[in-house]
Amino acid sequence: MSSKSVTIIGAGIAGLKAAEVLLKSGRFAKEDIVILEAQDRVGGRIKTDKDSSKLGVSYDLGAAWFHDALTNSVLYDSIDNGTFVPAKDGYFDDKDIAMYASDQDGPLDSGNLKLVRVLEDMEKFMELYFMSDLGVKDISLDELAKLYVEKYKVFLTPEQLRYCCRVFRYYELWFGIPSYDISAKYAPMDHQGRNLYNKIGHGFAIDHLVSQIDCEISKQHQVTKISRNIRGGPKKNKVELADGSTIDTDYVIVTVPLSILKLKEGPQKITWEPPLPKPITEALDQISVGSLGKVIFEFDMIWWDKNQDRFDIIPDDVSSFGVVPKSWEYPSIIVNYARVKPGTPSLVLLTQSPVTDYLEEHPEQAWPFLKPMLSKLNISSFSVPDPINTIVTDWTKNPFARGAYSAVRTGDCPDDLIIHLSGENEGVGMGSGSTIRFAGEHTIADGSGCIHGAYDSGKREAEWILNDSK
Amino acid sequence: MSSKSVTIIGAGIAGLKAAEVLLKSGRFAKEDIVILEAQDRVGGRIKTDKDSSKLGVSYDLGAAWFHDALTNSVLYDSIDNGTFVPAKDGYFDDKDIAMYASDQDGPLDSGNLKLVRVLEDMEKFMELYFMSDLGVKDISLDELAKLYVEKYKVFLTPEQLRYCCRVFRYYELWFGIPSYDISAKYAPMDHQGRNLYNKIGHGFAIDHLVSQIDCEISKQHQVTKISRNIRGGPKKNKVELADGSTIDTDYVIVTVPLSILKLKEGPQKITWEPPLPKPITEALDQISVGSLGKVIFEFDMIWWDKNQDRFDIIPDDVSSFGVVPKSWEYPSIIVNYARVKPGTPSLVLLTQSPVTDYLEEHPEQAWPFLKPMLSKLNISSFSVPDPINTIVTDWTKNPFARGAYSAVRTGDCPDDLIIHLSGENEGVGMGSGSTIRFAGEHTIADGSGCIHGAYDSGKREAEWILNDSK
Repeated sequence: MSSKSVTIIGAGIAGLKAAEVLLKSGRFAKEDIVILEAQDRVGGRIKTDKDSSKLGVSYDLGAAWFHDALTNSVLYDSIDNGTFVPAKDGYFDDKDIAMYASDQDGPLDSGNLKLVRVLEDMEKFMELYFMSDLGVKDISLDELAKLYVEKYKVFLTPEQLRYCCRVFRYYELWFGIPSYDISAKYAPMDHQGRNLYNKIGHGFAIDHLVSQIDCEISKQHQVTKISRNIRGGPKKNKVELADGSTIDTDYVIVTVPLSILKLKEGPQKITWEPPLPKPITEALDQISVGSLGKVIFEFDMIWWDKNQDRFDIIPDDVSSFGVVPKSWEYPSIIVNYARVKPGTPSLVLLTQSPVTDYLEEHPEQAWPFLKPMLSKLNISSFSVPDPINTIVTDWTKNPFARGAYSAVRTGDCPDDLIIHLSGENEGVGMGSGSTIRFAGEHTIADGSGCIHGAYDSGKREAEWILNDSK
Repeated sequence: MSSKSVTIIGAGIAGLKAAEVLLKSGRFAKEDIVILEAQDRVGGRIKTDKDSSKLGVSYDLGAAWFHDALTNSVLYDSIDNGTFVPAKDGYFDDKDIAMYASDQDGPLDSGNLKLVRVLEDMEKFMELYFMSDLGVKDISLDELAKLYVEKYKVFLTPEQLRYCCRVFRYYELWFGIPSYDISAKYAPMDHQGRNLYNKIGHGFAIDHLVSQIDCEISKQHQVTKISRNIRGGPKKNKVELADGSTIDTDYVIVTVPLSILKLKEGPQKITWEPPLPKPITEALDQISVGSLGKVIFEFDMIWWDKNQDRFDIIPDDVSSFGVVPKSWEYPSIIVNYARVKPGTPSLVLLTQSPVTDYLEEHPEQAWPFLKPMLSKLNISSFSVPDPINTIVTDWTKNPFARGAYSAVRTGDCPDDLIIHLSGENEGVGMGSGSTIRFAGEHTIADGSGCIHGAYDSGKREAEWILNDSK
């Protein structure tokens, strides 16, 4: 049994950043703060794997890009502190993507087909469709695409008609859920600049934060219960751990993933005393978690076009989906390491639910499942060789991750959760006077689902505590 | 001396549409309405030239594209009434543009240089720059581009640094003014879909409206004075013409170009009695008029790439501009008629102020001025032949057009004019009780500067009158 000023739950980038800001302020000693981490490692859904490669390459198994590169706080802080040098450590892998479909040999002539123009048009239509009236009922991305085609087919060429709905499904690789589940209402994205691929892996940002923090980071310490607004106790809040120990604490910053907050049962569930306010539990039911996963294939040579940044697997026109996903049923985006790290014979494939769940459960199926699509990329004179190494993520199987990050399914309404958990509206969150705070990618609008969103939310909550404890 | 219910000033698409709506309502007889047109032709800044070509081709000397093709009212009304068949009469000329610069032979490898990604980044930066604080001082597009490079040069390749500010000047061909004059604050455009090139010329839309209208259209009848709120007269307003005749009228719809409204002197000036309210005259001083012009060259053969939609002339990096523009100082966008109307050996170049003013004043200079840039497009084995025909617009010399359409110069503030002239805020425009209305591309936010904006504004004012006269 111990006593702390601030207890931070979760040693991902949100929790680490919060600790750094609190400690840097000079207002808290290292003994005043503890970071509790359920897993045996820090970093959360940032995980740079330096050991699995047979090529000596490091891969980000979780978050990989600096999104919103015009405004990304992690990027600029890292440049400022010298831990990231863009010209050396980053690469804008945003050349027009090379698209491959089962009904074509070699890449589509997407430039002459003007498929990107049609995609942009579909995106604008999606915005306009829901802007026309606040009460427009949400529909799935797939349904939206069909409406577009129905309404504007007179403007489309036969090839555009053939491919546009299939190409539009690239959204699945942003959200980690299939297009028949994606909320078209919340799908439009407003990127603040380009996406910078981080060649060195985001682990560097975790390592740097850890180096700046001298408080205790207790790994393998799972929180099971949070009691708040305790009257007459030594501290206002109490945190209980799986090993039975407790911490009395003035403040709590809860940075556990949305998937954990949403849990209604099971050993990873956090019990709240008193229970979470109804506006929050209702909001938690109105937002989902996607399963963006990765499959990395390493080869002994490069047999695809080393001058492309990314490849896009365009799915077939599927009318009904079985329980077990099949090849060509789902799109994939492939990062070309032969280009990102010149000469590296590996490919990093992004997958979405249900493909992620399936392949993470059956990693031995990764190559048989993906080979038919990957074979389209072959520009060598020989047939596609088997990989010398396969790395499959395990986010869906990790009980403390349970998937990737926030995703909005058709009918969800994500706004409430952010309003409540960001603490911007005290009255409807944990209630006035509460010193329980939330951080993480699911608690912020700008940078939602991204590293810098999580980081900014950690900073936000540290600053709230510094202000509240004056 | 005559008497009318509605007097419409200007037989452009705004005025014609207003008349059509009024007449279709059945509430006005053809004798109740008159359209006064200063010029000897209808259509205003829509002008489809079928006579000047030596190839038997028609060209739009004014407005040419259906912009905002997802929502363009003229486009959809024309499809509905059968006057425009997209698959036959339109062409989306929006393939990635082929870029040419003086320091390169042949087109830039813009795909691999990712110049479009950098342009998109610059556009987003422009938005963010002014969003950060409502009080941010306006700067020119050129200054904004320099700020971007200064701030983000660490992310740019040497080639991107070399070209990005120069390519960014393509905005000049949207607004008709040079980038050192363009307001960066008002430059961001929110397109509602793609831009559909009208192969048959927009004259068809004018012809169709005229065919629907049976009221008098008095050409070569210039309005010199508008008196309003007359007490004790036969009608509330009086319109005086250059020939000394007058019209007493219940309503007036003023659709003359912004350039005419802005006139403070000269024979085309309209005198207002009483003078225009100060909010309107002040607003008129806060918005400018661009000079988008066109030069059309016809040849006896095609010596450029017939598979490109458009060509982009990237200007040199110019540090100071002389009074007379020089080749390579300004960008141009070139529509490839060999592609738009397959087999047609002609090119349509867009120019901006001051190039438009210069070439419209000296059309014989068009070929010597533009040949150095156009020569870059040559993929034939022979040297570039002289054109067999040159057509140069005369919008800046036309006393009733005086340029092209609204443009926002650095420091301008266009919002007030639209608020006042659109009549959405009765109290600050012509005053409550006024039956003077305004229409035209300069009086509307959605479709500002475009055919469909003018058209929608004409419809808006007709509907206002129908409502007011109930």
